[in-house]
Amino acid sequence: MASGTPPHAAAAGTRLDPWLSSYAARTQGMRASEIRALFAVANRPEVVSLAGGMPYLEGLPLDILGELTQRVVATRGTTALQYGSGQGDEGLREQILEVMRLEGITAHPDDVVVTTGSQQALDLVTRIFIDPGDVIVAEAPSYVGALGVFSAYQADVVHVPLDADGLIPSALEETLTALEREGRRVKLLYTVPNFHNPAGVTLSAERRPQILEIARRHGVLVLEDNPYGLLGFEGDPIPAMRALDDDGVIYLGSFSKTFAPGYRVGWAVAPHAVREKLVLASESAILCPSNASQLAISAYLSTCDWKGQVKSFRELYRERRDAMIGALSEHLPDASWTVPNGGFYTWVKLPEGLDAKAMLPRAVTSRVAYVPGTAFYADGQGADHMRLSFCFPTPERIREGVRRLAGVVAGESELVSLFGTGPGAPNRTIQAPGPDLT
Amino acid sequence: MASGTPPHAAAAGTRLDPWLSSYAARTQGMRASEIRALFAVANRPEVVSLAGGMPYLEGLPLDILGELTQRVVATRGTTALQYGSGQGDEGLREQILEVMRLEGITAHPDDVVVTTGSQQALDLVTRIFIDPGDVIVAEAPSYVGALGVFSAYQADVVHVPLDADGLIPSALEETLTALEREGRRVKLLYTVPNFHNPAGVTLSAERRPQILEIARRHGVLVLEDNPYGLLGFEGDPIPAMRALDDDGVIYLGSFSKTFAPGYRVGWAVAPHAVREKLVLASESAILCPSNASQLAISAYLSTCDWKGQVKSFRELYRERRDAMIGALSEHLPDASWTVPNGGFYTWVKLPEGLDAKAMLPRAVTSRVAYVPGTAFYADGQGADHMRLSFCFPTPERIREGVRRLAGVVAGESELVSLFGTGPGAPNRTIQAPGPDLT
Repeated sequence: MASGTPPHAAAAGTRLDPWLSSYAARTQGMRASEIRALFAVANRPEVVSLAGGMPYLEGLPLDILGELTQRVVATRGTTALQYGSGQGDEGLREQILEVMRLEGITAHPDDVVVTTGSQQALDLVTRIFIDPGDVIVAEAPSYVGALGVFSAYQADVVHVPLDADGLIPSALEETLTALEREGRRVKLLYTVPNFHNPAGVTLSAERRPQILEIARRHGVLVLEDNPYGLLGFEGDPIPAMRALDDDGVIYLGSFSKTFAPGYRVGWAVAPHAVREKLVLASESAILCPSNASQLAISAYLSTCDWKGQVKSFRELYRERRDAMIGALSEHLPDASWTVPNGGFYTWVKLPEGLDAKAMLPRAVTSRVAYVPGTAFYADGQGADHMRLSFCFPTPERIREGVRRLAGVVAGESELVSLFGTGPGAPNRTIQAPGPDLT
Repeated sequence: MASGTPPHAAAAGTRLDPWLSSYAARTQGMRASEIRALFAVANRPEVVSLAGGMPYLEGLPLDILGELTQRVVATRGTTALQYGSGQGDEGLREQILEVMRLEGITAHPDDVVVTTGSQQALDLVTRIFIDPGDVIVAEAPSYVGALGVFSAYQADVVHVPLDADGLIPSALEETLTALEREGRRVKLLYTVPNFHNPAGVTLSAERRPQILEIARRHGVLVLEDNPYGLLGFEGDPIPAMRALDDDGVIYLGSFSKTFAPGYRVGWAVAPHAVREKLVLASESAILCPSNASQLAISAYLSTCDWKGQVKSFRELYRERRDAMIGALSEHLPDASWTVPNGGFYTWVKLPEGLDAKAMLPRAVTSRVAYVPGTAFYADGQGADHMRLSFCFPTPERIREGVRRLAGVVAGESELVSLFGTGPGAPNRTIQAPGPDLT
C-alpha cells in the first residue's frame, strides 16, 4: 500500500461502495459468514453435508400436495392470491391451536400471529423489545439464526451453560443476579427447550417450572423457540413452557420442520398486549403473511393425516440419529457428543487441541461438511465443538460422512501432536445465518 | 379516577400489559390506526370501499393457475417446499429482469433481491440505512406503508411537494439545501414516480434526470418504489429512474399489483454492495423468501401470457378510473381531484372547511369508505384530502360509492356552513398501515 493512502479496509470500501458512509450503525458489523463460501462448495453432490438443517422432504406425498394446492387456487383463489390479515388467516390460527395442544398449550386463536417462518417471529420479538445494549440471555450454545437477529438489533447476548438436561437453573439464577448487580437491562431469555439446536439436549420437565420461576422473579420475558418439539424419538412430548405460563412466555412454532419450510409459515403465541405489538410490527415489515402459503398449509392440515406424517418423520430421523451416533462411536472414539432424543442435531466435542473452524476447509476438501461451534456463540467460544446434522442425508451417507470426518480429525490430530496447533483467536463477529444454517 | 392514581394511560397500560416497561424505544409510538376499527365495518359487503388497494383478481385464470401450481409441487416439490436462497430463486430473478426491461432497466440477476412483497424490501432498505433521527425525504403526500416503516426505524420524514408532474425539482433542491444547512443527515429520497400512491400523479420524463442529479449532488440515495409502473392507461411506460442511474437508485418492484399479492413476492434492485447488505438483512429477518411462492410465479411467467394479463388489467382499471372521474365530476363538483394515467388511486381535495378524517364515521354509516389524507403525511397535513381507490369495486359500485360520498359531503358542508366546524388538530402519529391500506 502506498504511503499516505487510508487504511486498507476503508479504502477498499470507499472504492467499492459509494454508500459506505450512509449505512446505519446496526449495519456496520453485518457481514457474510466466512464459512459461507465453503458451504457453496459443500452443496456439491459429492460432499456429504452434515451442516444444514434442511428437513428431508422426499417422504412427503407430493402428488397429493400438488392436487390440494390446485384446489386451493382454483376454488379459493380470490382469497389465496389476495392480501390477507396482518395477524394471519383465522382458520389456520385455529388449526395451529390443535398442533400446539399436543404439547399441552391452550390458547385462543387471537393469541396467535402467523409469520414468514418462525425466523420472522424472532425478528419481530427482538424488534419490539430490544434497544441497543439491552441484554438477551441465551443458552451456550444457541441457535445461530437467533444470534444473528439479536446482533442485528444490537443486543448483548450473555450465555448461560446447559447440560444434558438443558439450561441449568442455578447458572441462570447466578447470571441474572450478576447482570442485575451490574445494572444491565435483561429483556429476554431465549431458549430452545426441545432437541436443542445445536446442542441436541432437551430441558427436563422438572427444570421447566424452575426456569420460569427464575425468569419471572427477575422480570425477564421467556422466548421459547420450539420448531422441533413434535419430532421426539421417545414417548410423548414434554409440555411446553408456554403450557405452564401464559403471561411470561412468547412461544414460537413452525411448520418448517414438521411439514415443509418452503411455504415459510411459522407463528408466535404471545400475551395479549405483546401480540398486538407483534401484529403492528409485522404489518410494517411485510403487510401480511402469504395467503397462498397459509391456505395451502391449512388444506394440508384439514385433509391429510399430518399426525401420521409427523410420526413417519420421527421414525426417519430416529434411524438417521442412530446411524450418526453409531458411526461416531465407531470412527471418532476420542470425541464426545450428545445423544439427542429428537430433532436434527448432535453436538460434538473434538479431541483436545482441535479447532473446528480451522479444520473446515480440510473437511470440505475431504468431501464432508459441518458447522463449526463458534457459529453458535456470541462471544467466540465453541472452537472445540461442531454441529452435525442427521436430518437430510440417508443413513448410509451419514456413515460415510462420519468416516470421512474421522479421517480429517485423525490428520488434524497428528498435526496438533507434531506442531501443537491450538484453536485460533476467538471471533466475536455474529454473522447472518443464511438458509444453510437453520 | 381516584386521586393519587397515576395518569390514566400509564395506569391502564400497567394493568393490561405486564411487559409495558420492557418495550424498545421504537415500539413506544407503535399503535393501531384509529381508522382501522372503521375499516372492519367498511369490509362489510353493503359498504362500497374506495379505501383499499386490493387488486381485482377475478380477472385471473384461476383454473390455469391452479394446474400450474399443482405441477410445481408435484414435479419440483422437493425444491418448492424446501429452504431456498436468501437472495431468491435465480430463475425468477432472471425473469424479473425481463419484467423490468419493459421500463428500460438493464441489470444482472445478481443485482436482484427477492423479498416478501416489496413491503419487506422497504423494511430492509430502511433497516440498513436509517439510524434514529436520520432524515428521509418523501413526497407530500406519500405511501402510508412506507411512512409506517420509516417511523418504525425512528426516521424523520420531511415532505417535498408534488404537482401534476410529480415531485417538484426546485422544491427538492430547496429542501435538501435547507436540511444541509441545519446539519441534518439525509439518507434517502423515497419516491413513487408512477401513478403515485396516493396522489395519482406521475413524475414526468423531463423531471427524472433532474431529480436524480439533485439527489446525487446532495449525496442522497434514491429509493424508487414502483409497484404500478406497468399499469399505465396510455402509451408505453416512462423509463424508470433506475434505467437512468445504476449507482444512485434502489429500485423496488412487485408482483402484487400486476399479478397477485397473495404470494407476497416483490424485489429490490440495488448497487452491488448495498445488495449484499440487503441479502444479509433479509436472511436475518426471514432466512429466505418462500420457494413455493417464487416457483409458482416463475411458472406463471414462463407458461402464461403475463403481458396479456397486464394489458387486460390496464383496460379493467382504466374503465374504473373513468367511472370514478365521471362520477366525481357529476356528484362532487365542489371538490377537486387528480386524473391518474394509471394505477389505482385518485387524490381528492374536499370543499373548503371539510375534514376527511372527522367525516369518515359518517361516510361509513352511509356505506362508503375511503382513506383520509392524514394517513399519507408524517406531519399531520392532509385533513382536507382523501384517497379514493378505483381498483377493486366494479364501475357501477364506484359510481354508487361516489354518489353516497357526495351525500355525506353535502351533509358535512351544511354543518360547516352552519357551525363552522373546521379540520381537527393535526395528528403526528404514524400508524401501522395494515393490509387494508396498501
